[in-house]
Amino acid sequence: MDPASPASRPGEFELIARHLRPLAAGRAGALGLADDAALIEVPPGRQLVVTADALVAGVHFLPEDPPDLVARKMLRVNLSDLAAMAAAPLAYFMTCCLPATIDDEWFAAFAEGLAEDQKEFRIALMGGDITRTPGPLTLSVTALGTVAQGRELRRSTARPGDLIAVSGTVGDGALGLAVLLGRITRDAGSGALVRRYRLPQPRLQLAQRLAGIATACMDISDGLAGDLAHICEASGLAAEVEAAKVPLSEAARAILAREPRWRTVVLAGGDDYELLFTVPPDRLGEIADEPVSVIGRMTAGSGVRVLDEGGRQLELGAGGYRHF
Amino acid sequence: MDPASPASRPGEFELIARHLRPLAAGRAGALGLADDAALIEVPPGRQLVVTADALVAGVHFLPEDPPDLVARKMLRVNLSDLAAMAAAPLAYFMTCCLPATIDDEWFAAFAEGLAEDQKEFRIALMGGDITRTPGPLTLSVTALGTVAQGRELRRSTARPGDLIAVSGTVGDGALGLAVLLGRITRDAGSGALVRRYRLPQPRLQLAQRLAGIATACMDISDGLAGDLAHICEASGLAAEVEAAKVPLSEAARAILAREPRWRTVVLAGGDDYELLFTVPPDRLGEIADEPVSVIGRMTAGSGVRVLDEGGRQLELGAGGYRHF
Repeated sequence: MDPASPASRPGEFELIARHLRPLAAGRAGALGLADDAALIEVPPGRQLVVTADALVAGVHFLPEDPPDLVARKMLRVNLSDLAAMAAAPLAYFMTCCLPATIDDEWFAAFAEGLAEDQKEFRIALMGGDITRTPGPLTLSVTALGTVAQGRELRRSTARPGDLIAVSGTVGDGALGLAVLLGRITRDAGSGALVRRYRLPQPRLQLAQRLAGIATACMDISDGLAGDLAHICEASGLAAEVEAAKVPLSEAARAILAREPRWRTVVLAGGDDYELLFTVPPDRLGEIADEPVSVIGRMTAGSGVRVLDEGGRQLELGAGGYRHF
Repeated sequence: MDPASPASRPGEFELIARHLRPLAAGRAGALGLADDAALIEVPPGRQLVVTADALVAGVHFLPEDPPDLVARKMLRVNLSDLAAMAAAPLAYFMTCCLPATIDDEWFAAFAEGLAEDQKEFRIALMGGDITRTPGPLTLSVTALGTVAQGRELRRSTARPGDLIAVSGTVGDGALGLAVLLGRITRDAGSGALVRRYRLPQPRLQLAQRLAGIATACMDISDGLAGDLAHICEASGLAAEVEAAKVPLSEAARAILAREPRWRTVVLAGGDDYELLFTVPPDRLGEIADEPVSVIGRMTAGSGVRVLDEGGRQLELGAGGYRHF
């Protein structure tokens, strides 16, 4: 920041030219990442959907995580937020605060991860910023998508009597992290759990099916119980979940059979990035071919009750972690 | 990030509810900062203009800078990028990575600064993220604006023979920083320079006038000489600037009269956030009532030449600082 002795060491321009400009190729409005801002056309009849997240090394990912997976998880977490609103991805903007330990090799692998997921999810980098930091690697992504007017899914629109459903399986991300931290002994199923933690699958296509059918929707990032509480609060309702109906992967089932104490982590841990949604009972048949499981029901009242097989309420504590 | 023991200490939800939610009031599409993403309508016939910047304490601002001014400068730097494209501000998204030293009082003052500038520039916070960091305070803003189709100003569209012009005065921001760093002795004019450094004025209204008149435009953030080089490179042209024509404030003139060595900082230092643009000679009359000064001319060739009163080329070194 000192004009007499440039604070940003050389390197940022090179990192952009070598690794990021190719990620903006094919998007004329990105202006080669060389102008003051990017230009984006929003198709008529569609609204823009925007979400932003920051990721800090040592807080949101492990510093030793492979850089391409850090990149892909970062994108997917944001894409999952777009999916939760039934939006189709459009573009993203990224700011990178790089400590001196991040070298060209790390950044090249990071950009390769971005490139891979850009292809998979038809999204492109259209702008951002690279700067140095004396602190840990800090990434911020703003993802833009679009949804047809009035087709967006929100958290606040669940209705009493709606069924509560989730996509895929729940708890794998949190168990995968526990494996990485050495809290769960590695076995044949550990690899799948770690992959779920490191490389979540944003449910973009399912979300398109849910638009017009689901009454409320969000993605599970902070844990099933805590996130369902957000839908309850936003909709002014209560939720009752049967723990036995929560869909589990084979690997998760094996761990719970061995060590039942991990059930709390499955129900309240984060990093699933599955869709959690409510649906009127008479509309459920329309998504019968999708990988979704009904786990409970919305009722009048407030709060989330998770019941075990005997109908007893489970105490999940303050599980989940918070961000906005 | 550990689901068994929440990594984010309590506080983020409280900071959002207390200080940020009011900044999103009046924007229905922000959904109370309580959904997965925000919804934004882009008016028909207009394109979206998007820019993102990261700011790190100790790199982009001084840790002891007043929090309301940190907030306002952060917004204004992004608004200046929108102005450079002739866009009208629409909304912004912000991620905040907060070290433990940032308390409620600091954050309240920071949010007050945001509120003040939101009113002035008719922009609103519509989403983002708060997280803790073991590193320095790190802020990232993505600002969204709109511009009528085809009315945007770019860097790449200057033409040979165009005049080069700047708004306001040049060099005050860099001199203000030098004052703050104790490199320039404080005198009667110092306060004005420090204010220019801490609270730049995005030229949003002037930019609206320039749309359709200027051929190329950018904002001066990295220094006049370095930024003009970007226009040259993007447009495939050269630029010749007469140093004596560069508009200076009274305070800057007083410093240069006393210590001519600061001329390099004036010409190559950053943080002006004035508009630097090119305009055909026969269109200049249309903006004669605006605070703009002609400082040179675009020619065939490449590179920027800054000439002194005797027509000798000034050596400005690698002045300016870099980001993308």
